[in-house]
Amino acid sequence: MSIAVPKGFLLAGVHCRIKADPRKPDLALIMSEVPATAAGVYTQNVVHGAPIALNRQRTPSDRICAVVINSGNANACTGERGREDARREAAFAAAACGGKEDEALVLSTGVIGEFLPMDKIEQGISAAAVKLGRNDASLESAARGMMTTDTAPKLAGRTVKLADREIQITGLAKGAAMIGPNMATMLAVILTDAPLVPDVAQKVLFVAVDNSFNCISVEGHMSTSDSVLFLANGRAGGDPPVGDELAAFQEALDEVCVELAKMIVADGEGTTHRIALEVTGCADRESARKIARTVANSALVKTAVAGADPNWGRIVSAAGYADVSFDPAGVCLAVNDTVLYRDGVPVDFDADSVSHSMRGGRDVLIRLELAEGDAAVRFWTTDLTAEYVRLNADYHT
Amino acid sequence: MSIAVPKGFLLAGVHCRIKADPRKPDLALIMSEVPATAAGVYTQNVVHGAPIALNRQRTPSDRICAVVINSGNANACTGERGREDARREAAFAAAACGGKEDEALVLSTGVIGEFLPMDKIEQGISAAAVKLGRNDASLESAARGMMTTDTAPKLAGRTVKLADREIQITGLAKGAAMIGPNMATMLAVILTDAPLVPDVAQKVLFVAVDNSFNCISVEGHMSTSDSVLFLANGRAGGDPPVGDELAAFQEALDEVCVELAKMIVADGEGTTHRIALEVTGCADRESARKIARTVANSALVKTAVAGADPNWGRIVSAAGYADVSFDPAGVCLAVNDTVLYRDGVPVDFDADSVSHSMRGGRDVLIRLELAEGDAAVRFWTTDLTAEYVRLNADYHT
Repeated sequence: MSIAVPKGFLLAGVHCRIKADPRKPDLALIMSEVPATAAGVYTQNVVHGAPIALNRQRTPSDRICAVVINSGNANACTGERGREDARREAAFAAAACGGKEDEALVLSTGVIGEFLPMDKIEQGISAAAVKLGRNDASLESAARGMMTTDTAPKLAGRTVKLADREIQITGLAKGAAMIGPNMATMLAVILTDAPLVPDVAQKVLFVAVDNSFNCISVEGHMSTSDSVLFLANGRAGGDPPVGDELAAFQEALDEVCVELAKMIVADGEGTTHRIALEVTGCADRESARKIARTVANSALVKTAVAGADPNWGRIVSAAGYADVSFDPAGVCLAVNDTVLYRDGVPVDFDADSVSHSMRGGRDVLIRLELAEGDAAVRFWTTDLTAEYVRLNADYHT
Repeated sequence: MSIAVPKGFLLAGVHCRIKADPRKPDLALIMSEVPATAAGVYTQNVVHGAPIALNRQRTPSDRICAVVINSGNANACTGERGREDARREAAFAAAACGGKEDEALVLSTGVIGEFLPMDKIEQGISAAAVKLGRNDASLESAARGMMTTDTAPKLAGRTVKLADREIQITGLAKGAAMIGPNMATMLAVILTDAPLVPDVAQKVLFVAVDNSFNCISVEGHMSTSDSVLFLANGRAGGDPPVGDELAAFQEALDEVCVELAKMIVADGEGTTHRIALEVTGCADRESARKIARTVANSALVKTAVAGADPNWGRIVSAAGYADVSFDPAGVCLAVNDTVLYRDGVPVDFDADSVSHSMRGGRDVLIRLELAEGDAAVRFWTTDLTAEYVRLNADYHT
């Protein structure tokens, strides 16, 4: 199924010799024909690359005309040269898209420890500028231009039908387990032709990210470059959506972000299971997320899932050290819809049958229910396999 | 080298048929000939077994005469029967050692999900009571009676020479990576013939645990039963040590606990490297420990060490998400005494040489230096190997 590009956006992906393989695009350029509203959500890591600082300074904005993303070599340097390279890369992209030098945003991902090859990047931006287009191939090549260890481009789209117009939301993302010399950088760019003012764009993006990219974990290692950018250029026409229309827009934006986030989890190399965690009955959403994240990041839970072992002890005890207070006697746990633990006590269950269901499918559903309140979260992660460790330990050889 | 048993303590380890293998002791009994001061430090896990609740209620104390530890079957149940079993196990041990029913402490480790076989445990306590002794074999059999997946008993001792007497401190511990159906329970019992009042015993134990057992991590999974018990029976004579004598006692107690803690790390099954982390230059010790723990628990750092990869990016970026604020431009990093990163910037180094030193030895030293203050921590952990994952995923098969 083809995914539409929102009105007024043009994209291209090109190979500019950052990656060794000439078949792999390593630069993506996204242009808005009119100055777009832009918002961003960025890594909370204290250590972050120069593009993060640049984008943070420039968003929210009402006049972004371009986003440039290079892959294969991250600008993870925090020094003067890293900052200058980020500024130059953005300025070159802005110029190529007819904007002023501070009207572009920049993302960079790949090997760390080397400065950016600026000559290649500038050639790449020039080459991309003449290839900009709105068809399937343009969109896919841009998505491929962001990729590092991803095995496939990640694209998602939704059309929102409002009373007098249709709004398109389309997202591109990259990210997978931290394999090879790359950081596990998670990048996403969401484009829409909806008219939005910067504050509203920032607000709806926060909500969508909170429900999606902030609810996934592959190995719990927070990258120094994680970023989600959101551009809204208003080319669908009309006034900014409010009320029910804004709610419908938010729902579609959430769906696009959740779909992309789940694609990132599914692309964890060396994993054999996708794990969906539903944590319910918490005092507040942040508590639910802390518990979900702690369970998701437990090497013992992840290895148990890899081994198709319905090990309630590992799951419940991981919840217990999430730094969230709760009554253990109120805990219930189900794996693939079989209850293993109820009201704080393990129950008899057919372990072979649950194990069989875990072994047979790629998806495992863990439901953990507390008795503290009404807050809940859905969280997605992967298992931990010997193959994952082999890939991460031995990439030099 | 033989380790002395502090005066006034008797120990025994026996096999009482909890473990299948008759050569493996599964119950340890420790008796103090006179009522001892007792202190304890316990898991912070919200979900914890019945023995934790019992010991927490009974410590600090000035009249503990016995500690009983069973291995092979944990009392991880939090319900009424778990509490009653813990109370009965302690009462039986107290009676066997000539004390009142509430004058014993109890530890329990092993498979979870089954109630304790109380008949076997009571027979085991009776058998141990007649075997109680003070020689090397008594001490070792007690240490073996605590073991689950440990490959060797863990014992450490120090003699503190004070002006007019000698004080002995001797510790027994068990713990390894969470392998098989066991929780990664870390248990330790520290015995001394020093005279200490309960409050001081609790205080010196807190300090020692803070420097040792709280500074290790194998896979970051906090057990529901982790406990350190400390008994001081005063049989060395004299008044409680104060001032310099107390400081000398504290130092020796710290050493015993650090030695035991490092033995636990070294016994992580399926690991190929012991990692020592020194984090310095922090604003406070808790910040240093949070950074050390986050680096230690990063699957990417652990797999990099397994692969002998001096990957500064993974280490520095893990520090960055430890939820501690610091200036990235002040960060320096050395691995096995080679500087990889200085003042926030990677430096040129001979990666092959560092990799060679990591591959050649079982110990890897990571020094991470911040520029925030004078607080520091030493932390010990292991690498993460495909073998570890295999052991943890496939124990059912």
